[in-house]
Amino acid sequence: MKLQNDLFLRAARGEQTERPPVWLMRQAGRILPQYRALRGSLSGFKELVETPHLAAEVTIQPVDEIGVDAAIIFSDILVIPEAMGLVYEMVEKKGPLFPQTIQSVKDVENLRSGAPAAEELNYVYEALKITKRELNGRVPLIGFSGAPWTILAYMVEGSGSKTFSKAKKFLYTQPEAAHLLLQKITDTTIAYLKNKVAAGADLIQIFDSWAGILTPEQYSTFAAPYIAQIAAAIDKVPVTVFAKNAWFAYAEIGRMDCNVIGVDWNTHPDFVRNAVGNEKVLQGNLDPCQLYAPAAEVEKATEEMLKKFGKGKHIANLGHGVYPDTPLDNVKVFVNTVKNG
Amino acid sequence: MKLQNDLFLRAARGEQTERPPVWLMRQAGRILPQYRALRGSLSGFKELVETPHLAAEVTIQPVDEIGVDAAIIFSDILVIPEAMGLVYEMVEKKGPLFPQTIQSVKDVENLRSGAPAAEELNYVYEALKITKRELNGRVPLIGFSGAPWTILAYMVEGSGSKTFSKAKKFLYTQPEAAHLLLQKITDTTIAYLKNKVAAGADLIQIFDSWAGILTPEQYSTFAAPYIAQIAAAIDKVPVTVFAKNAWFAYAEIGRMDCNVIGVDWNTHPDFVRNAVGNEKVLQGNLDPCQLYAPAAEVEKATEEMLKKFGKGKHIANLGHGVYPDTPLDNVKVFVNTVKNG
Repeated sequence: MKLQNDLFLRAARGEQTERPPVWLMRQAGRILPQYRALRGSLSGFKELVETPHLAAEVTIQPVDEIGVDAAIIFSDILVIPEAMGLVYEMVEKKGPLFPQTIQSVKDVENLRSGAPAAEELNYVYEALKITKRELNGRVPLIGFSGAPWTILAYMVEGSGSKTFSKAKKFLYTQPEAAHLLLQKITDTTIAYLKNKVAAGADLIQIFDSWAGILTPEQYSTFAAPYIAQIAAAIDKVPVTVFAKNAWFAYAEIGRMDCNVIGVDWNTHPDFVRNAVGNEKVLQGNLDPCQLYAPAAEVEKATEEMLKKFGKGKHIANLGHGVYPDTPLDNVKVFVNTVKNG
Repeated sequence: MKLQNDLFLRAARGEQTERPPVWLMRQAGRILPQYRALRGSLSGFKELVETPHLAAEVTIQPVDEIGVDAAIIFSDILVIPEAMGLVYEMVEKKGPLFPQTIQSVKDVENLRSGAPAAEELNYVYEALKITKRELNGRVPLIGFSGAPWTILAYMVEGSGSKTFSKAKKFLYTQPEAAHLLLQKITDTTIAYLKNKVAAGADLIQIFDSWAGILTPEQYSTFAAPYIAQIAAAIDKVPVTVFAKNAWFAYAEIGRMDCNVIGVDWNTHPDFVRNAVGNEKVLQGNLDPCQLYAPAAEVEKATEEMLKKFGKGKHIANLGHGVYPDTPLDNVKVFVNTVKNG
């Protein structure tokens, strides 16, 4: 089906566009009253993730309500560990919890991986198919995964953490087991993302949420090579890499076979441009907290952000996922300022 | 009293020394069996902070046990909000909690500040005096405070947080109240640190633990100017500024009237040196998780770290506080490798 609004995809491929496309990480979520109403009627977050027609419904809500230039499939990066055999719970107000974690090479060996693991996630592919049908070509659909290091971090740590010191300890004390696990996650992720593309994803974004807690040396050893494998394996659609707080790794990310590089709000676009050269498209980077400010200041800050990125090779977004208590009107000011800017 | 080992102070003043001095952030704490034994006999963390002879005892423990080149007074950055009128609890395994928080300019106006607030902290000055007496000139004694932005973050947020989005919202929606609060914290901190110097502190370190969640513009507006005021006001002893994850702010920190700049483990010393020039002394920056590795690797990584900083203008430390479950033997390997390196 031909897209009516393909601005996002043209920009991601590096084409000159009439304006920057705009969407928000976590746009399908608690900022929308429609989402909160639906979520309130369910048993939990995972029911929403695992029920294709509901995941499709919340994926489309921000396209209707906010008028963004792309939809991103409602899902969770932690479906991958679960498909590999490590079940998790989503604890209200606390976040993910893995009752069992990975502690040894034996634990790693026991995990499913690759295509057989990716087959466990049919509900995600089904959600993509329904979304594509219901979007009816209005905007492109983004598929995503976590980066292997970030997924390993949860599988070893067992929950969120300020330091992820157990996960980092695993890298320092059991590097071979870590590499084995990272490769299994990578193989699973590649199969998973190819299935997502087959189900209709028009672009793939890889989130390395915990990139910033590694040393540069660890990032080069345990994180970047596996993202590079995934980026190289996804050949039918453009790929975005967003490694949060990994300012020290932009040159390395710039050498990957990806089209778009995410930029967090700490980082000036010029810094990234210097590191990655002129080919890649940059995506970001308004501070999500900026949307708490009065509307006039949101507009001004959005204009300044657009100016910093300059004309072309830019997809407007926040520098991180939008926070749940953000005023919806300010989200709209952000989107409309980009559209009219 | 003349110091028997003044290596740390000579290095902090920028003098060429025979080897880099070495100490660890959070060296007085759970890594030591002596600390755990004492702590287990008490009602809680705050009893230890508020009882001068006990604070002095744990301050000196790592000098005896690990052989570091400096002691740092056992205390907490949150004694400042408490002295200003905002009581906090330290909740076991969860961290600090403020039952009341700052939400409005009225709340800020109601706070004590400056010398009268600093007078509330006599137990800290008493702890410094006892420590100095009992150290008996063996090594210098470091006093410290939180940076005003980090203190504001806790006072507004009310607890630790991954995003500190309430504190950042305060900056975006009530900038005048924020500046008023930052100035009151700054005035209190200056009076407090001068009292600490009078009580025997040989160097002052300012910790900006949450520097890295601000945008560069916010850092220049709400964080750096207040640290600069404090650094300029402390004129009798050297000053160290450690702004964690504020890689984008090193040039600005380099222009402050401080002697030493802390470096976290994400940041190559060359990057900081380029930003701050050749005058300042750098302190850091081994990854605290590196100390989980086998001893031979700790030694090798410490040697590589020393090499990266080069000869002179370096104080060896970790890039963050040592984690509570770090093997004590590896802490000693780190210290001894610097001493013998």
